[in-house]
Amino acid sequence: MNNDHEPVISPVPLVHGGDWAGYMEEYTGAQPLDFSANVSPLGVPSGIVKAIADAALIADRYPDPLCRSLCRKISEAEHIPENWILCGNGAADLIFRAVAACKPKHALIVAPTFAEYEAALTTTDCQITRYFLRQQEDFRLGEDFLQAIQPGIDIVFLCEPNNPTGITTPRELLLKIAQRCRECRSLLILDECFGDFLDQPQAHTLKTSLADFPGMVILKAFTKMYAMAGVRLGYALCCDNGFLQAMRQAGQPWAVSSLAQAAGEAALKECEYVDAVRQLVMEERPWMRRQLEEMGLRVIPGEANFLLFYCPVKLVQPLRKMGILLRSCANYHGLDENWYRTAVRTHEENIRLIETIREVLRG
Amino acid sequence: MNNDHEPVISPVPLVHGGDWAGYMEEYTGAQPLDFSANVSPLGVPSGIVKAIADAALIADRYPDPLCRSLCRKISEAEHIPENWILCGNGAADLIFRAVAACKPKHALIVAPTFAEYEAALTTTDCQITRYFLRQQEDFRLGEDFLQAIQPGIDIVFLCEPNNPTGITTPRELLLKIAQRCRECRSLLILDECFGDFLDQPQAHTLKTSLADFPGMVILKAFTKMYAMAGVRLGYALCCDNGFLQAMRQAGQPWAVSSLAQAAGEAALKECEYVDAVRQLVMEERPWMRRQLEEMGLRVIPGEANFLLFYCPVKLVQPLRKMGILLRSCANYHGLDENWYRTAVRTHEENIRLIETIREVLRG
Repeated sequence: MNNDHEPVISPVPLVHGGDWAGYMEEYTGAQPLDFSANVSPLGVPSGIVKAIADAALIADRYPDPLCRSLCRKISEAEHIPENWILCGNGAADLIFRAVAACKPKHALIVAPTFAEYEAALTTTDCQITRYFLRQQEDFRLGEDFLQAIQPGIDIVFLCEPNNPTGITTPRELLLKIAQRCRECRSLLILDECFGDFLDQPQAHTLKTSLADFPGMVILKAFTKMYAMAGVRLGYALCCDNGFLQAMRQAGQPWAVSSLAQAAGEAALKECEYVDAVRQLVMEERPWMRRQLEEMGLRVIPGEANFLLFYCPVKLVQPLRKMGILLRSCANYHGLDENWYRTAVRTHEENIRLIETIREVLRG
Repeated sequence: MNNDHEPVISPVPLVHGGDWAGYMEEYTGAQPLDFSANVSPLGVPSGIVKAIADAALIADRYPDPLCRSLCRKISEAEHIPENWILCGNGAADLIFRAVAACKPKHALIVAPTFAEYEAALTTTDCQITRYFLRQQEDFRLGEDFLQAIQPGIDIVFLCEPNNPTGITTPRELLLKIAQRCRECRSLLILDECFGDFLDQPQAHTLKTSLADFPGMVILKAFTKMYAMAGVRLGYALCCDNGFLQAMRQAGQPWAVSSLAQAAGEAALKECEYVDAVRQLVMEERPWMRRQLEEMGLRVIPGEANFLLFYCPVKLVQPLRKMGILLRSCANYHGLDENWYRTAVRTHEENIRLIETIREVLRG
């Protein structure tokens, strides 16, 4: 039993970056510069802010549980039939729903990767096999991954580009993986949440192959590209409408708020914003990589809006004291406390990060 | 396989009211008068609208996964320790999480009641025992419910006041039920989402007994009282912080959007709004009941912001054609197509409903 005067502590450690709220509690309201969450650094587009404010006026109505209008807009933008689309309360919601709908007994995931796959898998009685990516190969997925997919593997999670490495797998190998999953009747959850940050997203996505693989679910998010992580909106693409319906029924009917539905529709009109974000990332990512390498740090050649690097000097706490949040990768399977992930932000902000790291390394 | 030109139909029938979106699709954009969802008819309070618009500006940040600031405010408002509170993406999210954390093999629910208890229970391999409420007793829960709670029942759902009947159980019997659940090691999920619409909420809630029953979880929602169903925000109260943590880990970490967190904090300041809603319901509910009874219809003497009534004439489609949504109760276990649930709205709107029903009955 607890009592009234006990301070609130979180017995569940936070496993992700982006804990600006914890920082603000510690530093009584000061705003950190957050490199620990991988979202667009250009702020929420004004069109989205307006759409949310307008939607708030009529938020006494329940959200459309089927997200009909939003699905139509996503369908047009993605060139995917409407009934291949299921919206969720962020992609993370859809990860849990996919697991709940699949009820896997045996799962295959890579390491390191996004922690929520395993978090979702541990809600069911599921054995987890980890394929460890090798740092000497820059954490690239090898052809030998195909042998890891065997009959009896009910579900395979892949993140492309992978989080936290930013590395992609050649599209040819991805197709072989999808084929192998089909042969083994393994559900393939292909998380493309960071796919639109690649220099050539269309050359990498398996979206155009959805019809060939009814057992493949592609996950996408509005969260990162449109700087709306706080709004929560993601979607799943799959040509097996029956499986999408099973995912829908694996959770509550009103998962996607009407604010998020309105924000999503507005986001799809923000083409200039997306171009600006992509341009920024394309310029800043190589710049940051060079800066980190010039300090003698090993940087994994990631292709998304974040970079994974190795630094034998402790960085998180010193940077935190200087108002900067960086993601320690100590809690990723296959990494340790010497690995860090940084978001790619605006040039000015990136300079501040780089100079602060330099300062810490100088001691 | 589907193809591009197939119209989007929902293979999963919608089981709830509030489908204004379906109406608008059918009637090309016309706005229905919605009596099928039980939310405050006074619209979203302006303080909440403003809080959401402000929060949208900084929604590039991930939501605080622990809802720290909001939990503090709920703690103050409810006089409940902060670590007895878990926020969710609407109470419906928390229903699914409670089931996922409990993993029940055998559940006890009443009929009729809110459909999401059963929807959540069917995500696990769970036997469901239904205790049928008797219409000749106005669907009141009897003392014999105590005998239905037996060792081996892992979870019991109760809705107070019950949805769709609006009927409450005497507090003394509720306490006996909680004691019986404790003896049988059955988790008791007490859904008080409509509790604040009662004439005397404090006289009915078991909130003040939380400390005595670590196996009791009380659910509450912002959705209905504050007219923010589209925003999604609910919370669970339980003195067993371990169970709340299990519920937290049963789903994604960022379930509650930062917009909902801001809206919740703003809502708790809307005391005058709440008084106005409560006053309205207290005046309009008996008025509507009288009007329906004067038409010769049987009305269950509900105590919340909605009324269940029996009408041998088909109402839903005729009303729909006249722009009014009413909730058919045909899909509730223990009811049939002659039962309807209506929300209590403003006097002007209620007059329109009553007159329209009168018109339909005249034929």
